[in-house]
Amino acid sequence: MSKDGVKKVVLAYSGGLDTSIIVKWLQDEYQCEVVTFTADIGQGEEVEPARAKAEAAGIKEIYIEDLREEFVRDFVFPMFRANAIYEGEYLLGTSIARPLIAKRLVEIARETGADAISHGATGKGNDQVRFELGAYALMPDVKVIAPWREWDLLSREKLMRYAEEHGISVEQKREGKKSPYSMDANLLHISYEGYDLEDPWTEPGEDMWRWSVSPEQAPDDPTYIELTFEQGDVVAINGEAMSPATVLESLNKLGGANGIGRADIVENRYVGMKSRGCYETPGGTILLKAHRAMESLTLDREAAHMKDELMPRYAKLIYNGYWFAPEREMLQAAIDNTQQVVNGVVRLKLYKGNVYVAGRKSDTNSLFDESIATFEDDAGAYDQKDAEGFIKLNALRLRVAASKKA
Amino acid sequence: MSKDGVKKVVLAYSGGLDTSIIVKWLQDEYQCEVVTFTADIGQGEEVEPARAKAEAAGIKEIYIEDLREEFVRDFVFPMFRANAIYEGEYLLGTSIARPLIAKRLVEIARETGADAISHGATGKGNDQVRFELGAYALMPDVKVIAPWREWDLLSREKLMRYAEEHGISVEQKREGKKSPYSMDANLLHISYEGYDLEDPWTEPGEDMWRWSVSPEQAPDDPTYIELTFEQGDVVAINGEAMSPATVLESLNKLGGANGIGRADIVENRYVGMKSRGCYETPGGTILLKAHRAMESLTLDREAAHMKDELMPRYAKLIYNGYWFAPEREMLQAAIDNTQQVVNGVVRLKLYKGNVYVAGRKSDTNSLFDESIATFEDDAGAYDQKDAEGFIKLNALRLRVAASKKA
Amino acid sequence: MSKDGVKKVVLAYSGGLDTSIIVKWLQDEYQCEVVTFTADIGQGEEVEPARAKAEAAGIKEIYIEDLREEFVRDFVFPMFRANAIYEGEYLLGTSIARPLIAKRLVEIARETGADAISHGATGKGNDQVRFELGAYALMPDVKVIAPWREWDLLSREKLMRYAEEHGISVEQKREGKKSPYSMDANLLHISYEGYDLEDPWTEPGEDMWRWSVSPEQAPDDPTYIELTFEQGDVVAINGEAMSPATVLESLNKLGGANGIGRADIVENRYVGMKSRGCYETPGGTILLKAHRAMESLTLDREAAHMKDELMPRYAKLIYNGYWFAPEREMLQAAIDNTQQVVNGVVRLKLYKGNVYVAGRKSDTNSLFDESIATFEDDAGAYDQKDAEGFIKLNALRLRVAASKKA
Amino acid sequence: MSKDGVKKVVLAYSGGLDTSIIVKWLQDEYQCEVVTFTADIGQGEEVEPARAKAEAAGIKEIYIEDLREEFVRDFVFPMFRANAIYEGEYLLGTSIARPLIAKRLVEIARETGADAISHGATGKGNDQVRFELGAYALMPDVKVIAPWREWDLLSREKLMRYAEEHGISVEQKREGKKSPYSMDANLLHISYEGYDLEDPWTEPGEDMWRWSVSPEQAPDDPTYIELTFEQGDVVAINGEAMSPATVLESLNKLGGANGIGRADIVENRYVGMKSRGCYETPGGTILLKAHRAMESLTLDREAAHMKDELMPRYAKLIYNGYWFAPEREMLQAAIDNTQQVVNGVVRLKLYKGNVYVAGRKSDTNSLFDESIATFEDDAGAYDQKDAEGFIKLNALRLRVAASKKA
Repeated sequence: MSKDGVKKVVLAYSGGLDTSIIVKWLQDEYQCEVVTFTADIGQGEEVEPARAKAEAAGIKEIYIEDLREEFVRDFVFPMFRANAIYEGEYLLGTSIARPLIAKRLVEIARETGADAISHGATGKGNDQVRFELGAYALMPDVKVIAPWREWDLLSREKLMRYAEEHGISVEQKREGKKSPYSMDANLLHISYEGYDLEDPWTEPGEDMWRWSVSPEQAPDDPTYIELTFEQGDVVAINGEAMSPATVLESLNKLGGANGIGRADIVENRYVGMKSRGCYETPGGTILLKAHRAMESLTLDREAAHMKDELMPRYAKLIYNGYWFAPEREMLQAAIDNTQQVVNGVVRLKLYKGNVYVAGRKSDTNSLFDESIATFEDDAGAYDQKDAEGFIKLNALRLRVAASKKA
Repeated sequence: MSKDGVKKVVLAYSGGLDTSIIVKWLQDEYQCEVVTFTADIGQGEEVEPARAKAEAAGIKEIYIEDLREEFVRDFVFPMFRANAIYEGEYLLGTSIARPLIAKRLVEIARETGADAISHGATGKGNDQVRFELGAYALMPDVKVIAPWREWDLLSREKLMRYAEEHGISVEQKREGKKSPYSMDANLLHISYEGYDLEDPWTEPGEDMWRWSVSPEQAPDDPTYIELTFEQGDVVAINGEAMSPATVLESLNKLGGANGIGRADIVENRYVGMKSRGCYETPGGTILLKAHRAMESLTLDREAAHMKDELMPRYAKLIYNGYWFAPEREMLQAAIDNTQQVVNGVVRLKLYKGNVYVAGRKSDTNSLFDESIATFEDDAGAYDQKDAEGFIKLNALRLRVAASKKA
Repeated sequence: MSKDGVKKVVLAYSGGLDTSIIVKWLQDEYQCEVVTFTADIGQGEEVEPARAKAEAAGIKEIYIEDLREEFVRDFVFPMFRANAIYEGEYLLGTSIARPLIAKRLVEIARETGADAISHGATGKGNDQVRFELGAYALMPDVKVIAPWREWDLLSREKLMRYAEEHGISVEQKREGKKSPYSMDANLLHISYEGYDLEDPWTEPGEDMWRWSVSPEQAPDDPTYIELTFEQGDVVAINGEAMSPATVLESLNKLGGANGIGRADIVENRYVGMKSRGCYETPGGTILLKAHRAMESLTLDREAAHMKDELMPRYAKLIYNGYWFAPEREMLQAAIDNTQQVVNGVVRLKLYKGNVYVAGRKSDTNSLFDESIATFEDDAGAYDQKDAEGFIKLNALRLRVAASKKA
Repeated sequence: MSKDGVKKVVLAYSGGLDTSIIVKWLQDEYQCEVVTFTADIGQGEEVEPARAKAEAAGIKEIYIEDLREEFVRDFVFPMFRANAIYEGEYLLGTSIARPLIAKRLVEIARETGADAISHGATGKGNDQVRFELGAYALMPDVKVIAPWREWDLLSREKLMRYAEEHGISVEQKREGKKSPYSMDANLLHISYEGYDLEDPWTEPGEDMWRWSVSPEQAPDDPTYIELTFEQGDVVAINGEAMSPATVLESLNKLGGANGIGRADIVENRYVGMKSRGCYETPGGTILLKAHRAMESLTLDREAAHMKDELMPRYAKLIYNGYWFAPEREMLQAAIDNTQQVVNGVVRLKLYKGNVYVAGRKSDTNSLFDESIATFEDDAGAYDQKDAEGFIKLNALRLRVAASKKA
């Protein structure tokens, strides 16, 4: 008999140990059919091997998909139009990938007639929230199964024992040394949590980082690149047109080679506690700097300021899992409304962890008017006497108040 | 006969060519007495030489003051409690110094019985606004004389001719090569405008920068430092207690030696145009990173987010010259209210332009609870099952809406 | 010879005394051709009589237009989608009409080859700012002539003498008693300033008000009406479909007859001083109440809250004259994005100055779910136990902080 | 044996049927000692009778307290300084009382050595959240017992049966007709939910309302009153000094007699659903109008606007139960910072449901300057020519952008 009436569940399946155990556990505990869904979102691991593993586990409906272009085009790029940063430091690498997975989970549920979805996120983290808010927003009656909140396999030992008892291969990590950190990767970033990071006074060792060389080991000569923007998105690097995912992959390589994009932060989770995380976001770090520079030349002052004021809220919505919520959509409408004019080229200098803006230009949309800004004679483009009236009226309320105090 | 009834004017006087010309011009044009005020706010030039020049110009009331401690304690530090950045890049180095000068100008006007103040800022920039809004807010009936908006000495040649005709020494720049840039410096930063920066596509030459070595020339080994915070302000470096100005001076040296704090931006002036500026803010760049890290450990999540949302407005107020305005004061009250708990130590790694957080701790105020955050067994500190209810209720409105759409 | 090179100017012309004087003054002072533009925006006075007057003044190009539908459809309704109120009280009746006039002024300037526009607003008020910001935003090189800031006819006596000397009829007010107040009217409201209102402690006499009966004189029986909304706009009253302007006219009658929409406020002008104004906005007052009620049933909670937080800024932008600015447009994009679901019917009770919501329903978009909200048994629609987890996780940060304090 | 280790629990006890059942249920279910806490916060019912009932139920520690002054002074008045309104309509009457109850519950728990608190709020509403967030913030280790989320007495019949079986008197309603609505009252308001309000299209009958006459039945002559403000709080009515609670009581009488303060709304609960509520807040409605009017005369424009922008967030925090949270406290610091100047007198006209401002004055802090605001000759107090420069520089960015588009 199926539990809670669940007949078929779509599982976000990596093919790794944890989700392999979940497959078995779902089959046993819920007595239901399991559909696996494995996506390439740029995590840097092959997804095809998941097929054989799923088949071996008796799965009949196996979805394996390359979502990299959709991920960057429909999620990463819109987010970067907002210059989104959570708590001043975090570029939301994990947060922005979850709604895409949630969306595909429920789409597959509809396609396969499943009534439930499942994921391998724990009950302490943000990802459970992101998966589930996304799923509920798109399929309100879906049943969500979160094994980590349900089962009692809460220690590594119990998990291993369960795996052995059920004939699940624990030789999951095929290559290289096993990391002691809990990691998550996609085309935008790789994250590290746990182990010695649990003491926020401890600096992680150099061998933790996977995507970037250390600034110390980065080349002694700078790398200059030019990014071409159209309506706020990068469409070419050094003049070469590229798809969104290719742009981000290329920037990751450029950034990683120059030691760019490492962050070590204490952040506030939506579920209430502070946690320590380290992140490598090489391409995203470059992209953010470049986008701001492109906007600085082409965007109206007050629109830019409004974006800056709305940004923390927008970033928080994404961090907390509200991508598919009306309030995120209304902010996106405001943000996108401003990006029509964000066209041009930004030149950057990459050097040992640094991203410097070395130039910005826009043939069509530059609002920089040399004739007005110049310190030299401007031939009447700007009347300095206007400033007096401007100041006087802006000061009026302050003067009236001061005269009342006196 | 005095013009506009002005009898005595207090002039913000550097002793340089421009303000020397202004002294003469005020004496001639307004037929009034001039009081000079020269302040050391860490601009890196001796202020005492201004005395002899003022005397030579016939000035009887000469004010020369060291305001460095007041500047950092009452202006820079309160601003950094807010993590203030204008337009995502500018640390407000010039902006934050102007209200202090304005305050002293009107205080001296009161002491000397002057009825006017004067400054050497042009009619195109932000500084005139900052000086004058500050002055009007503190002395509503003060007359402001802004020679650059009044006279016709709008080209360098005319200025030089005026100087020669009136016997003003043009040998103002005593040492080293003369910079082609328009510069402004104080303990927080040095700025560059004009000349080849007027083309935003041009990267400035290495010889423009004065306060920092280039990242390329910075030491090959990182420097680690520890900053101690009390109520949001740094009170010690590497365990050594220091006054506010000494803290900032020390951080400037550390930052400058490691190539830290260079920014090259296009910014939006309050008077309406975009302008290009380059800035070196070595100590401030370190301070901002450290303060955020200290807050990440000790500040409540929602208070931190509220600060992030208010910050752009707060920064804009300072940029626009509204330091002495009620809306800045009410935001400051909110910000300061949060800083009581921002106590502890931040460890930083400085390396070739980068500031990395290498650790943060707070014996008294850390809100990081390892027992809750841990990925290992938490012995019941956090009940993962609570997450289900949390998600369910947060999702409720999204589910209801989705079910109506379906 | 023309002054400042002005050859032809388009004047916002009411046909009243002031703008008749301006016609003459422009002809004399600027020696330029004058095009008059008179619009019916619902001010309640005939516009056709302006034609004969303009002709008598020698005007060759005379524009007289009925803009009522455009005014309500493209300006008033979009603004009400935001529930816009300035300083908690003012429904922006004058503010929202100015950009439309500015827009037509510059369009007519383009059609007639004029290089300047002119208006009759004084140098102390907001309207000059609204006209001119609108004009500059749409026609950046336009020359603006604001006679009140230029001429010396600053007292009523001087104006009268000028009129007499130039043969301008001062018999402008044709009907009824002359009001001692400065008034402005359009389809959204009528405003009163000056005279005894200049003392904010004085209550205006009943005879000041023109559009509404006093609550005391309103009918003793309530009037019930039903407003039908589509995408945030009213499209029918009591089931009868109407054009935007007809909706507002009808609501004005209903409101006026029931003593609705009077406000007496001290407001902050953009030019820096406080001023006292009284307003009658009968239809707008009903519309605002109804729109909020419609949203309360159909709009997502967080989208509604975001709208509430953005509203004061949006209202301020309109008050200050920034309708044609990118920041207003980006906020409008956000607001409009939320209105797709604002469909349904609101039932209102109008009674002696009050507007009460008596019911709201939406067949297609109600988010009110009786089965969840009920205090009776909900048959499992909502699991009360979810609340515990919801509260626990929301409290977590507060508990951790409290335990550190203890 | 006690359940969950609970030894003693402090219960928010009204003496009514529900909390009487809870006493018994706690004694039986938790086998623990119960302390009752009954507070007079102006709900309009005697609290002393609760003593005999508690004694009859075997309670040894009985707290009965008059908290009316503390309620108004420390909760209601600070909230009204912010002009707080939730969702444009709700004056937060219930929300603001809960933190005070939570505070006393945990204080009594500390005094009596109790380890738990309990309340009678259901699992569907906001009040459980407000009680519990408050309690957790002040006593992080407290155990909260929410019987409605735990027991199975979810229908009225089951409750009645439980009461009969345990000898609890169901003759709770002593006087007058029994209301079919779920009600809550305190000095700020009385609320109604449930019954026929569950259909948002239904208008409630006149007999639902308890605190106010209908506008129809209110006096035919207006009542004028004068409220004196000190630092944002009302300290006198018609010149007579009064304590905070007396002020609110008096305003309730005045408002109720004039049919003022009825609201009928659909609101969004924090726990996720929309609900319908009706409220009578006679004194609060008057207070809000008066406070805004006092601020309109005395508060700086930008401080007032900042308050308006922060208000929705502040109101939401109170609605959601975050009174004792750092983010509420930081906003309060900002708000209180502005109120020092909010001194003076407001004159109001109360008439059949309406509150009209009839005058406002402030000898010490009025920022209204008749000499500047006047439409008559201002003798040079304001230079109209300043407006040109003000407009020109504010328009500059718009003009540059427009010229690029052209």
